[in-house]
Order: sequence, then C-alpha cells, then structure tokens
Amino acid sequence: MSESVGFIGLGIMGHGMAHNLLRAGFELSVWNRTASRMDELVASGASAADSPAGLASQCDIVIVCVSDTPDVQTVVLGENGVIHGARSGALLIDASTISPRATREIAEQLAQRGLHMLDAPISGGSEGAAKGTLSIMVGGESAQVQRAMPVLRAMGENITHVGGAGAGQMVKLVNQILVVGNALAMCEAFVFAQAGGLDLEKTLAAVSGGAAGSWMLSMRGPQILERDWSPGFTIDLQQKDVRLALAAADELGVPVPVTSMAFHYYRALQAQGLGSEGNHALIKAMERLAGIEVRAGQ
Amino acid sequence: MSESVGFIGLGIMGHGMAHNLLRAGFELSVWNRTASRMDELVASGASAADSPAGLASQCDIVIVCVSDTPDVQTVVLGENGVIHGARSGALLIDASTISPRATREIAEQLAQRGLHMLDAPISGGSEGAAKGTLSIMVGGESAQVQRAMPVLRAMGENITHVGGAGAGQMVKLVNQILVVGNALAMCEAFVFAQAGGLDLEKTLAAVSGGAAGSWMLSMRGPQILERDWSPGFTIDLQQKDVRLALAAADELGVPVPVTSMAFHYYRALQAQGLGSEGNHALIKAMERLAGIEVRAGQ
Repeated sequence: MSESVGFIGLGIMGHGMAHNLLRAGFELSVWNRTASRMDELVASGASAADSPAGLASQCDIVIVCVSDTPDVQTVVLGENGVIHGARSGALLIDASTISPRATREIAEQLAQRGLHMLDAPISGGSEGAAKGTLSIMVGGESAQVQRAMPVLRAMGENITHVGGAGAGQMVKLVNQILVVGNALAMCEAFVFAQAGGLDLEKTLAAVSGGAAGSWMLSMRGPQILERDWSPGFTIDLQQKDVRLALAAADELGVPVPVTSMAFHYYRALQAQGLGSEGNHALIKAMERLAGIEVRAGQ
Repeated sequence: MSESVGFIGLGIMGHGMAHNLLRAGFELSVWNRTASRMDELVASGASAADSPAGLASQCDIVIVCVSDTPDVQTVVLGENGVIHGARSGALLIDASTISPRATREIAEQLAQRGLHMLDAPISGGSEGAAKGTLSIMVGGESAQVQRAMPVLRAMGENITHVGGAGAGQMVKLVNQILVVGNALAMCEAFVFAQAGGLDLEKTLAAVSGGAAGSWMLSMRGPQILERDWSPGFTIDLQQKDVRLALAAADELGVPVPVTSMAFHYYRALQAQGLGSEGNHALIKAMERLAGIEVRAGQ
C-alpha cells in the first residue's frame, strides 16, 4: 500500500504538483495559508487539513512547497507546525528553494524527534509542475530518497540524488547561478547588438545554434524581442534565489562577482515595481543603463 | 564555370577551409606568411602565390582568414596587398574576426577601386573548419552574398546574411559576448559548487539539461572536470575577440560589464602564460581568486 501524502503550499508550483499526486492515486491531504486555494483540490478528492500539524498527523510523507526560508521554518517548526503533529518515522520533503544551511538545521531538529527530511528543490516552472516534468535535485539519506521515489516520480522526471542534507538546495543554487549568468550574457549581447544597429531576429538566428547557445537564449530571447514579459519565473522569485546564492557564497567564502551583479540588477527592477514580470525582464535594467531599448524587426 | 578562388591565411581554421574548397572542385591559389604551410595544399592541387597581390591577380574571389585587424589591413591594403593585384570586380571575403569599424573602412577603400567585400566571420572551431560545418555570419551587399554562396557553402553550413558591411563582424562579437558570459557563469557555478562540497559530476548532470543549460556547459563542463585544457578555441584568440567587443562597445557608447569582467580574467590568464590553453581554462582565474580547485569525483 502506498504511503499517505500531505501537501503544504498550493501556489503556482504546488497546485500542479498536488494534482499530479492525486492523479497518481495517492491519498492526499492539503493545507494552504490562504484556505480558499484548497477548494479545487478538495473537489478533486483531497482532504483539507486545519493546520500543518493536523495535516502531518494524518500522513506518512509531508511535502512542503512554499516561498522562502522563513516560510519553511514557520510551517515545519512554528506554532502548529509539521513537527508538532508528525508521526514517528514520517518523512518531510521540502520542495521549496531555501537556504542550504537552514535546511541542515531543520533536518537536525526533525531528526531529534525521529523524523526524516529530504531537500528536493524543483526546476522547470509552472508548466513543468502542471505536466509532472519537473527536474528535482534531492539531498538527504539514500534510504529516504528511495522511499520518496514514488512520490517524486509523480511530480517530476529528471530526479537526481546529489548528496546529503542541504545538497539539493546547493545544487539548486548552482542552477540559479547559471541561469542568471546566462541571462546577463543574453541581455548584454542584445543591448550591444541593438546599439550596433543589427537586426536582432537575424542575429538571434545566427548565434543561438552554436557555441553561444543556451536554454535562456533559445527560450527567452524570442520573448524579449516580442517584449513579452509574462513570467516563466518571476523577478521576485529570481531575486530571492540569487539572494540565497549570495548568502551561501558568503558563508563559504567564495567570490561570485557575476551573480552579485545580477542581484543588483534584479533589485533595481524590483524598485521599479517590476517584480512580478518574468526574469528575462532583466534586460530592462540594462536598457536603462545603456539608454536604449532593444527592438525586433528593425 | 565556377569562379577561381584564392585563400590567404592557412592557420588552424584556414587550412581546413582551403581543403574543403579543393574538395568542392574550386581552382584554388593559396598564400601564407609562413610559406611552408602551403606545401600540403599544393600537394593536394592548389597553386602557391608569391604574395597577396600575386594571388589576387589570378582569382575572382579572395578569401582572407588571419588573426586580427592589423593582419587583415596588411594583407589587403599593405605593400603587395590584395588591393594592388586584384582584378576589377573581384570579391574579397574576410573570414577573420576583426573590428567592425575597420571592416567598413576597408570595404570603402576596396569599393573606390571597383572591388567588392563581404565580412564573413566564422564560428565552429577547427573541427567545424575541417568538416565544413562552420557557422558563417555575413555582412555586405546581397548580390555579393549570392555570388559568394557556392564558396561559403563549401566551407560552412549555417550561413546567415545578417546585414550590410561590418554587420557580420558585429554579430560575431555578439556571439563572443554570449560565449564569454556563459563561460563566466559556468566557471562561477563550478567554483561555488566546489566550495559547497558538492559532487561536481552529479551537479553537472542535474543542471545541464534544464533552464541552466548552455552549449558551453555541455561541451566544456566535462572538459573542466577532467582538467583537460586542450583548446577548441584558445585563450589568446578569445581575449582578442573580447577586446574587439569592448572596443566596439566603447565606440557605440554601450556598457558591457560582464564582457569587461571576462576580459580582465583572460588578461590574467595570459599573464600566467596560459594563452594557448582552451578558453574554458577561464576557471583557473576564478579558482585562483577563490583559492580552491574544482575536482571531479569527490
């Protein structure tokens, strides 16, 4: 018999992931800070819990997918948190992107109560969450990773056990360092090309298939040329993840100058009220710096 | 009858390109500053010229593939340069990566003598030159691009006419801005991952297929983990191309902070005598900065 599952955090990502768990046949309890977000899942067969602790008392495996480190600390360790209701031997899977150090601390506190934890941050956007094609980077003990596999496979495709507690979060931050570095390169290249009077569509076609190519350029480059700022991933969340990477780099004593540059651009965009736009709107910061605007079809 | 072709500059790239022109059946004359480099092509059926001017007097189309702006100026405009021997209506195709501004100036001087010019910088490395799979970014008049097509198709696959004189060079610089930006992101991510104690092979496997992915990460990431510094493209040439991008950005008045950062790292590596290593040895500058060395299979 499969283990019963609880899901905390029914945002853009969690909503799709919880639906995929129901589709895969798991007995599912849900909890969300804004209670109305639970209605659709309850209509689909989930049961609504009255608190994270209440949810945990009914489940073998509890998945958390919230925004930031303090949110995870609240729903796991806070008043009415998971830790106060969890059954002995239960497994917490944290799919949020949060601090690797805080992750290790939470895992230690849970272990003292006989509870297990995996950090399992996700990548692939709301589309990947809806389709069940997420990439999942998992940190924790091998036995618990094996135990979690049926649940993880219901939500994602490329599931990699990358190391012990916190390693999933660290790899996610590596992922984000690459994402924002590639985005910076793309935006700088577009602004340079615009200043040089190039046709940006032809330029994109000429460079995207070779050594200059990236997922970012292929997926977000055309969006920039259409000035379509709809988010695959918002500036607010990108800025949060870059902040986590900078904090981790600072703790580790490693310089990350490119990531640091990206952070300040994202901060500038938030100050302009653009936090809910897609992370490729990064180019607006560079356009403002350069005093020009990139345009397709010149 | 196809036009007769001359090739100036039989370096790593030019050698393979000239061979492909012979294979495609073109009547080929060659010239190289170091004369012994011509021997193998002469053995394959090319004729050796005694100077760029001498070569130009025998050819309808002259291809130049040398290192830098002054080299092109010398073989085209200098003593015994192409301009002094070229037949009326001849076409010069410059496959070198040089200054877009200098390109427009050379094209103007040639036009005053009734000569045509295309800038057609290439991408794809020595392997692409040998296999005839180069990407070629072409700037110049449409009629001349059409005229050049049989010759370009003998050397490359992805041939894009991107605009007027100098536009090919500008797009090549856009390409290089993307290449070094993606390389910086990769190196920063690896050093961060190493500092965090991650298994770098697992990390690479977890992130390279998603939103963090790039040609650079997929092709050069594994080479870095093997500490294999053999060049697809050398640090010396990369530094030269970045210098051209910075000069063009300065002329255009557009800030390129990421590219500027890359330039100084490449300068540092040249100062350490590493100019002939592959451009992914960029990570050595970051390792020195961070005081650690990335390693596979921890």
